[in-house]
Order: sequence, then C-alpha cells, then structure tokens
Amino acid sequence: MQHTVSFTHEEKQSSVSVPTGTMLSDAAHLAGVEIGQPCGGQGRCGRCAVLVTDGNVRRRSTLRLSPADVEQGYALACQTVVEGDVLINVPPQEKIERRLTTDRVVAEVTIPADYDFDQHQSIHRVYLELTPPTMEDQTDDWARLQTALRTQANIPEVTCSLHFLQTLGKTLRDGEWQVTLVVDRDMEFPEKPVRLIEVFPGRVDDYSPLWGCAIDIGTTTVSLWLVDLVSGHVRAQVAEYNGQIARGEDVISRIIYSGKAGGEQEMRQLVLDTINELVETACKRVNAKPEDVMKATISGNSTMMHLLLGIPAGSIRLSPFITAVNHPPVMLAKEVGINIHHGGAVDCLPGVASYVGADITAGVLSSGLEHAEHVSLFIDVGTNGEMVLGNRDWLVTCACSAGPAFEGAGVVNGMRATQGAIEEVWINGETFEPTYRVIGGGKPKGICGSGLISLLAEAFLTGVIDKAGNVNLMAGNSRVREGAHGGEYVLAWGAESESGEDIVLTRVDIDNLLRAKAAIYAGFSILADTVGVPLEMADRVLVGGSFGKYINVEKAVQIGLLPDMEWSRFEFLGNTSVKGAYAALLDWRMRDRITEIAKRMTYIELSADNSFYDAFTSALFLPHTDMNKFPSVAAALER
Amino acid sequence: MQHTVSFTHEEKQSSVSVPTGTMLSDAAHLAGVEIGQPCGGQGRCGRCAVLVTDGNVRRRSTLRLSPADVEQGYALACQTVVEGDVLINVPPQEKIERRLTTDRVVAEVTIPADYDFDQHQSIHRVYLELTPPTMEDQTDDWARLQTALRTQANIPEVTCSLHFLQTLGKTLRDGEWQVTLVVDRDMEFPEKPVRLIEVFPGRVDDYSPLWGCAIDIGTTTVSLWLVDLVSGHVRAQVAEYNGQIARGEDVISRIIYSGKAGGEQEMRQLVLDTINELVETACKRVNAKPEDVMKATISGNSTMMHLLLGIPAGSIRLSPFITAVNHPPVMLAKEVGINIHHGGAVDCLPGVASYVGADITAGVLSSGLEHAEHVSLFIDVGTNGEMVLGNRDWLVTCACSAGPAFEGAGVVNGMRATQGAIEEVWINGETFEPTYRVIGGGKPKGICGSGLISLLAEAFLTGVIDKAGNVNLMAGNSRVREGAHGGEYVLAWGAESESGEDIVLTRVDIDNLLRAKAAIYAGFSILADTVGVPLEMADRVLVGGSFGKYINVEKAVQIGLLPDMEWSRFEFLGNTSVKGAYAALLDWRMRDRITEIAKRMTYIELSADNSFYDAFTSALFLPHTDMNKFPSVAAALER
Repeated sequence: MQHTVSFTHEEKQSSVSVPTGTMLSDAAHLAGVEIGQPCGGQGRCGRCAVLVTDGNVRRRSTLRLSPADVEQGYALACQTVVEGDVLINVPPQEKIERRLTTDRVVAEVTIPADYDFDQHQSIHRVYLELTPPTMEDQTDDWARLQTALRTQANIPEVTCSLHFLQTLGKTLRDGEWQVTLVVDRDMEFPEKPVRLIEVFPGRVDDYSPLWGCAIDIGTTTVSLWLVDLVSGHVRAQVAEYNGQIARGEDVISRIIYSGKAGGEQEMRQLVLDTINELVETACKRVNAKPEDVMKATISGNSTMMHLLLGIPAGSIRLSPFITAVNHPPVMLAKEVGINIHHGGAVDCLPGVASYVGADITAGVLSSGLEHAEHVSLFIDVGTNGEMVLGNRDWLVTCACSAGPAFEGAGVVNGMRATQGAIEEVWINGETFEPTYRVIGGGKPKGICGSGLISLLAEAFLTGVIDKAGNVNLMAGNSRVREGAHGGEYVLAWGAESESGEDIVLTRVDIDNLLRAKAAIYAGFSILADTVGVPLEMADRVLVGGSFGKYINVEKAVQIGLLPDMEWSRFEFLGNTSVKGAYAALLDWRMRDRITEIAKRMTYIELSADNSFYDAFTSALFLPHTDMNKFPSVAAALER
Repeated sequence: MQHTVSFTHEEKQSSVSVPTGTMLSDAAHLAGVEIGQPCGGQGRCGRCAVLVTDGNVRRRSTLRLSPADVEQGYALACQTVVEGDVLINVPPQEKIERRLTTDRVVAEVTIPADYDFDQHQSIHRVYLELTPPTMEDQTDDWARLQTALRTQANIPEVTCSLHFLQTLGKTLRDGEWQVTLVVDRDMEFPEKPVRLIEVFPGRVDDYSPLWGCAIDIGTTTVSLWLVDLVSGHVRAQVAEYNGQIARGEDVISRIIYSGKAGGEQEMRQLVLDTINELVETACKRVNAKPEDVMKATISGNSTMMHLLLGIPAGSIRLSPFITAVNHPPVMLAKEVGINIHHGGAVDCLPGVASYVGADITAGVLSSGLEHAEHVSLFIDVGTNGEMVLGNRDWLVTCACSAGPAFEGAGVVNGMRATQGAIEEVWINGETFEPTYRVIGGGKPKGICGSGLISLLAEAFLTGVIDKAGNVNLMAGNSRVREGAHGGEYVLAWGAESESGEDIVLTRVDIDNLLRAKAAIYAGFSILADTVGVPLEMADRVLVGGSFGKYINVEKAVQIGLLPDMEWSRFEFLGNTSVKGAYAALLDWRMRDRITEIAKRMTYIELSADNSFYDAFTSALFLPHTDMNKFPSVAAALER
C-alpha cells in the first residue's frame, strides 16, 4: 500500500509516495530532503530526529529520544517506518561549512632533493617525427606509430586504450606527422609494455607542466595536492569535507550505511563527488583542466579505500576483520570514476589490515620512521588511533578504536575544529574560572578536540575533576554542578555563548574522553610490550594527522594521551598521508618503499590480545594508574 | 530562425522544429522518421526521395531526380535544406526483411580434430579451495586468492578488473572459501599475467559449457557463432542484416556517412545493436545469458572494424588509403560495447590494408590457402572483390572495387538474395524466351546477384547481347526493345511479376555488371602477372563469401567473372570469415597464424598499378578480349 510522506524543511515542501514499511530516511532521500545520519543510520546518535506532525509511523527504536521528545512527536528518521500518510517537519540540519579555510590547508612542501623527473617519474612525454604515408608505404597509423616508438624512443612494446586509437589518426594528421605522446611506463620493470595515455599534435615543450595529483581520503577531510610532475612542485593544495560525512561520521557508521540497499553506490558517489570537485578547484587555480591530470596517487584508511572503489566493506567491521583488498592493483581513472584524464592511472596505496590502511603506510614513509636508526613511535590520531613502533629494522603496528570523542562527537558540546570552536582552555585553580580561545574569535559554539584535551588537562590539574574523572561537586563553586547526566563543569555561560545556552563538560563526556585516550595509550603499551622496548625509550614521537597539528603536547601528556617524554622529542608532521602519497606520485622508488613498508609491518590485532583490556583499564585514569609512567605530571601535581 | 518540419510517413504524423539550413534527412532523424540512405547521404542513389507537399526547401542536388520528379515536388532528403515551415510526405521505404532465413545461415562445422581445450584455449576454469581467515590469519581476500592461485594452480601473477574486486569478497563467503574462477591466459607467453574474468562460488563442473562467440561483421550481414569453448561445438549460428545498411549500402557510403556530425557514433551504435541482438538470440537458443559469454573473436573488413570501434575511417577512402589500425589490440567487451561478459576479451582479427581486412586473413586461414602446396587463388566477392594468390611460401593480395552490382544495387531491377528474387535464368536461343527460378517461389520481385550472372551468361550465349554488351535490337523479338536507357531485355512481363511491371535488364545495368566483373578479373590478372604465374596454373580456386555459395560456376566463367578452368578445381567455402574467426576463437595457434598471414601477405595497391587499367579494359568484354583465356566459353559459343 502506498502512502504520501510530506516533508517541510527550511520552509520548503516536498512529498513522495512510498509503500508501507518504508524507512523515513529513505523516503526523505527519495524526496530530495537531506537528513544527516552521522551514525550511518544505526539509531545511535539521535541526530536524525524529525517531528511527525500528522499521521502514523512506527518507531523501531527511540533509544536516543526522551519520553518527552516522543510525546512531542519526535522520531528518528533512520529508525521509523511509514504506516500511513504522514506530515514530517525536518528541523534545521547541522551545517558543515562548505569550504575548509585555506590557512588550515596549506602545508610547506619540500621537493625531494634528489628528484629526477627522467629517472624517477613514470609519466613521460615522448616526441616523435613520423614519415607520412604514401601509395608506396600504406602502413596503418598504429603500426607507423609503433615503428617510430621503437626506432626513435627505444620503446619496443606498448598498450593503449580504444580512445587512444580513436583519436590517433586525426592527431597524426593535425600535427603533420609530428606528435607528442604522454606515456606511463614501469620504471622498475622497464621491459614491461609502455602504456600510451594521450597523443598531442606537434611538439609540446619539455618543461611545460605534466599534472598529477596526490589525494588523501580522510574519514572527515579529503585533501588533494596538484603536482607538476616535471618539476615536482606542488602547485595547489585543496581540501574539503568528505561528502560521506552526512552518512556516518566514523568508519563503522559508514560501513553500516554502505551495507544498506544502494548504500555502497551512494557512498562511492559521495566521495567521488568530493574528489572530482577538488580536482576541478585545484586545476582552476593553475589554469589547467581535469583531463590534463595524468595520474592520481591515493592514500586513505582501508574503509575509505573500499568505499571509493565500491568494494563491499562489511567484512572490515565483523570478526575476524578482513579487508577485501590491501594492495589494490593500479586502475584507470575511467574505471574508478575520478575525473582526471580517463586514461590516467589511479594508484591506490597499499594498507596492512582493516584498521591500518594506506594512510599509515604512507605516513610511515613520509615521517621517516621506516629508516630511523633508533626506535621511534609514529601515531595518527583521528577517529581511530593508529600507531607504529619501530625503526629501519622492524615495524609493529596496531589500531585502537578511540571513537570520535576527540573529533567532538559523543560529547554534549563537542564540535569539529571550525569557526566558533573553543580550541584551548586555561582554568584558574582557585576560582575554577576559565579562559579560552575560540577559532576565528567571536562567541563560542562548542569545544573541538584540542579544546577538549586542554579542558580535561586543566580540570584535572586544578582539581575540578579527580583522577577518575569525577567532578568535584564538593568545591562549592558555581562552575561545578549536578546536571542531567551527573556532575558537570560550565566552561561558558549562556550569556557568552553563540546559542545562549551554557557550554558544559559532563561526566558522560569525561568518560567518553577517558575511554578514547585510554584506548590510544593502551595501544602504545601493547606495542612496546610486544617488542619488549619501554615506551620511554622511543627516540622520537612522530605525530601525523591534522589533529596532531593543533594539540598542546603538554596537555595531551597531562591527560595521559601521549607518553610522558621531553617535548623536543615530539614532532608534529601534519597530513603525513597526503605527503606520502605525494612522494609516491613523484618517485617510483618511494612507491616501492610504501609496498615494502606494508609488507614489513607486523600487525597486532588488539581484540585478539588478552593484555589489551588490562592496559586499557589501567589507562582509564588521569593520567594513568601507574604514575611512574608520567613523572612530569606527578611533578606538576605536586606544584 | 526555427521552422517546423512535419512528416507524414506510413499514415503517421510527426514534426520537429529545426533552424534554417537543416538537412531534411537530419530533420527526419530528429523526428524519428526512418529514411534509408543507401549511398550514405551523397545524393547518388536517389533512394531517399521524399515529396515536399508544402513550404520552401532548397535542393542542393537533383542529380537522381528527373525534371518531372522535381516538378511534382520530389526532393532528395540528403541533399535538401529547410528554408521555412514544410510538409513532407515520406514514401514507403524499402523494407529489409527482419530476419535472415535460417536455412541460408547454418553452415556445417567440423571441430578441428586436434582441438585440445587445455592446450589450445585461452579461457579456462580454475577451482580453488582457500583457507578461511581467522583472527590469527587476517590476510585480505585478494592476497588470499593470489596465494591459492600460486600454490594450487601454479599461477604466479594475475590482473583483474575493479568489478572482480567488488564481487570477490561476497563470492568467497557464499562459496565457503571454495570458488571457481574463469581466467584468460596467454597460451603463447605463459609467463604473462593471467587475467581473472569472473569468480563463481563453489565448484563448477569441468564439462559444463564455457561460451565464446565468433563474429563476422559483413557490410551486408553480421554472422555470429556461439561456441562451447570446452568441447569446441558451435551451438548456435545466427545472422542478421548489418544495422548500418540504412546509412549506406557499401563501405564508401558508410565512411562518408560516418564523417558527418554524430555519424561515427551512430554507425558504431547501429552495428553494436545488431551484434548485441545476435548475442542475445544465440544465447537464448542454448539457455545461456549474454554475460556467460567470456570471449568474442571478430572478423570483418577494415571499414567495418573501424566503424565498430568508433575509429574514424575517413583516411581509408582517400589517397593514399590508410587505415588507422590493422592489428587492433585485444580489448575488453565493456570498452568495445559488446554485451557479453563485460570483462570478456574482444579480439579483433588483423587486416592487411584499407581494402584487405580481417575477413580476408581469416578467410585465407580457413580456406587452407596459407598451407597449400600448390599455387591457389582465394577470392571473396561482395561489394568489393578481394583476392589472394599464393601457397604456403608466399601470398599476394589485392582488392578491387567491384561496386554493388552483384548485390543487386545499381541495377534497375536488382535486389538482394531474398524472397522473390530471380536467382537462376535460362534463355531459349531460338525464341529468347526465358525460364527462371525465384527464391521462395511465387511471383518475382527482381533479380539477385546469382540471377544477374546467370542472366548475363545466358543472354550472351544465346545472342540476346553481343560480347560488348549491346542488346540485339535487330532480332525482331518482343523480348528485346529500346528502353529509356538504351536497349533492354524483358525477363518477366508485368503480368507475371509481383509489382505488375516488367522486370528488365537494361544497357546501363549490363555496363554496371561488366565493370564489376572486369574489375574482379583484372585483379586476378594483376596478381598473376605480379608473381609471373599464369592464372590457369592455379591448382584450386577457393571461393569465400555467401555470394560464392549460390553462383553457378559455369555461368560465372562464361561472363568472365571467374577464370576458365575445370569446375572440380573450384571450391565454395561459404563464410570463410566467420570460420576463420571460429578457428581463432578456439585455438591460440590459429589466432597466431592469422597474424602471420596478415604479415606475410604482400598487398598490391591497384590504383597505384599502371597495368590495372589495361587489364580492366580488356576484361570489359564477354567473357574477355583475349578468348584464349576462356577456351571452354569459346567452345560453347561454337556449339
């Protein structure tokens, strides 16, 4: 039986006819109404709540709604099925700012000193002068070209696409039998056939740019560097939120969403749209066209790689946590759906396991860990915390599900690190009065990851909370109070906030943050225990990811998120994933090394490791049960 | 300025709005009205004439219209532009019978006696049993499969499509880690990577069919054989008119049409539609699905191959007559657009030159010419006459533009060899009264190629026409008379014909036929002269093409179309092109031999050969100026 579902959203009306039992979120999708599903439609985040103003629905789950909410008519779009004609009011959706601010994007890039275009780059130009055909020499165009390649460029064997053959004849004649080819050759195995990508009439200047792009598909942000392969220069750096965010904020939610009917295809298209928009933006900056880009090298975690390629990711989530592919073969842009030159190669870098992907292998390369003389620790903290301990001789790695707390999710007033986020906090130990810094200035809207770390550390050191995370309600201070979810600390009063409501840190938030940091620190401990090297022996801590770029090390140590060692031994490297992709894009030897890194890394599956739970429990305190591991924090507490 | 063009066609009305200057044929196309353009829109055949009943048009050419026609309002759709609102009446179009009669299609096929599926076929099944993943062995699916291929099937290196990776994980799990792969391997170079086409859950019976198809794209007819690659059996033979016919009846017309805006794409789609329909029909006969077909091997002349692949064919037509590609690389079905398994290989067989294509190299293979001990002649007569003289040591080839006269075009009462065509004629030498045989019985509609040869031979031997083709108007017989185009012979009176009008052979028809047969015989002469071997020395004459199958050798010799030698030395082989494609589909050694044949053949360009014109002129008589070349005809004339 068909029912009419009518939506009112941002003063616009739209309606759709669907059969009994249709999920409200699917109906909205059909009606073109955008309802975010940060948890991927599991009914866990409560952020797809809509108001049913008329008609019959059946709520499968109201876990994230209060009885009062349900009384008012609220329902979770992802957990509610249509059972008659209904009227739905969709509240304003959380807006993701359309474009990341440029200053957060531009990284300093050094072209590798030994980069030699001729020796290291797989994409090349080949200029040929052919003898025109005559009645005495009726050789076909394709054979004529192959002869010239053999005799003039020492290329005995080639492959090409049908498109190449379709354009060849005209180009040869337009160029009066002088043409420039763009070719892709295997620099490691020069005996392999050379792939002809494109043919241009006449002679193209050797020094004019040949474009390639390095892409990092982050769960939150997709970053793209447009590179002139001839000089090695990065000519444009652009970044944008991953279009999949509205269908899940973390990889698990996205895997769940992609498992629904049509979800795989939708997820794939969402990230392709993001990438293709970035390609276009970057190309515009250098007056190039997307089809001028001859190669793309892609990094990202294993889930992002599967979703990009439309490969079912379900097995990543379920024990025994298996990826479909860790080393994807090189594919053509046309097949993958990336709008660079359709014959351009798309090289997806290799990963190690379900939760240690190409972002980490590329990060290990660009961090320099893989040829470090002394033992070092590489970490990339995002929704998941991935870490690698090792040196030039050995590498061990693991991943822990930190959850999205440090990205502002699962925290009442948490938010992403954008305009209006509190990013740094100081608390007066006497008065509990805070001072804070807001991104972009102005009134605060919430607290981002670095702000949460800062707040937690300050609250702990000043006694606002104790080592177990309990809010000191006995202090007799108006900043600490009993809230709906236990004790809470008021960071900003409603009068000073953007929304007019208090910005608080609750007991539940603190628990989420403690679990996140404990998972990460437990990972460090397990790695160190596995190889029998005390964590403090690590010569350097290499921190990748944009998250690492903005945190205050001292405070991260104080909460026990990072190991307690001299600050000078920490290095914040920014987006090591895109940097690794850039290195691999330029130089086949670097690409090879990433494969080697992926093979060399010993992966430790924490869920199969009995000692993980102990390590996790010990780290659930501030900074840790074992204060000997945090001497600088012990000293600070004494002060 | 926009104008409305309204068409009335088969009692249906349709109209379209087009700007000033639009060609009527383009307007018809936009309006969905089918107007055949047998000459490809050159204004040469006159068969796209339509009646302009109201409004302004400008006729660029009326070459094929009489002043009376123009007076009545007739205009050639391909040569007339719209200059105002117009009403157009489209006369009934010549119908091409939808389906070729089956008895004309089925050929006897012998599976090569030495065919060994394991040794000769590139498509194979590989059954694998994988170890399921565990928490201790988290190897990704793709690496797990590669390991099994290495250890269980001795296949060290593989490639696959993105689609394969997308389906792998589910299939492995559906099959409980037992799967059957369909792979394509290079039998000649076993060290090359093996291509994985498809993966099925569980074990597939070794003897169940693996489908492939052999396709011959003729200018007029597309033939397809569906083959079980395991046994080598041809399980279905189907054929259909090439959908491009409505856009040109011969290769030159099609090249011209394809050079118009959108023409290339349209031509490509038309032949793809024909092929895909044939694939579907053939598959239905054996209860298979098109995606079950894992490989297609394609033969056809060079123009057909270019148009299939969407490769511009313009340079084939213009001096110095260059093809874009004679040896197309193997491509994937998806890229080519043929609806078999999208990862199936499409192998387009190699040709030699613009007018000696894969149909001839495949024909040379299947005719056995290439390993003949004694010199033999292979000929394939269609719109063009292609011929090869040689033996196992040498091969020379040429092509002559015979024109479509023997296919019934350019002849007033000519028609294709379908229902209603007169296919054989006998004339009483005393009375000039004819006897004839009609395909399918019933009233005659016209005369097909074999009928024209028969008629010409009988007319010559009985004195209806003389050796120069002049109609004997002095005979005082009602069957010979002065017509609008000179002398003519009445083969059937209006009372006995389908249309109610006389079926005649005119002086102009005779000239066209003489030019056609002279071009072919001149080709033989040049080949023989080039290698210094008298034509009558040829041990055998191997006649390919469906045309050859139905002609009467005696009569073809009498008109000087075929060389005068013992009938027992002629062999009629049917469609040698599809037979060669079948051989190449089954056995990589046969495929290799076709490449060798293409390389071995010495092509003689007749338009660059000064002696061709002399040979042609000498052959313009019945049977030839030099009667010594036709002793049996001389003897018959004496009788």
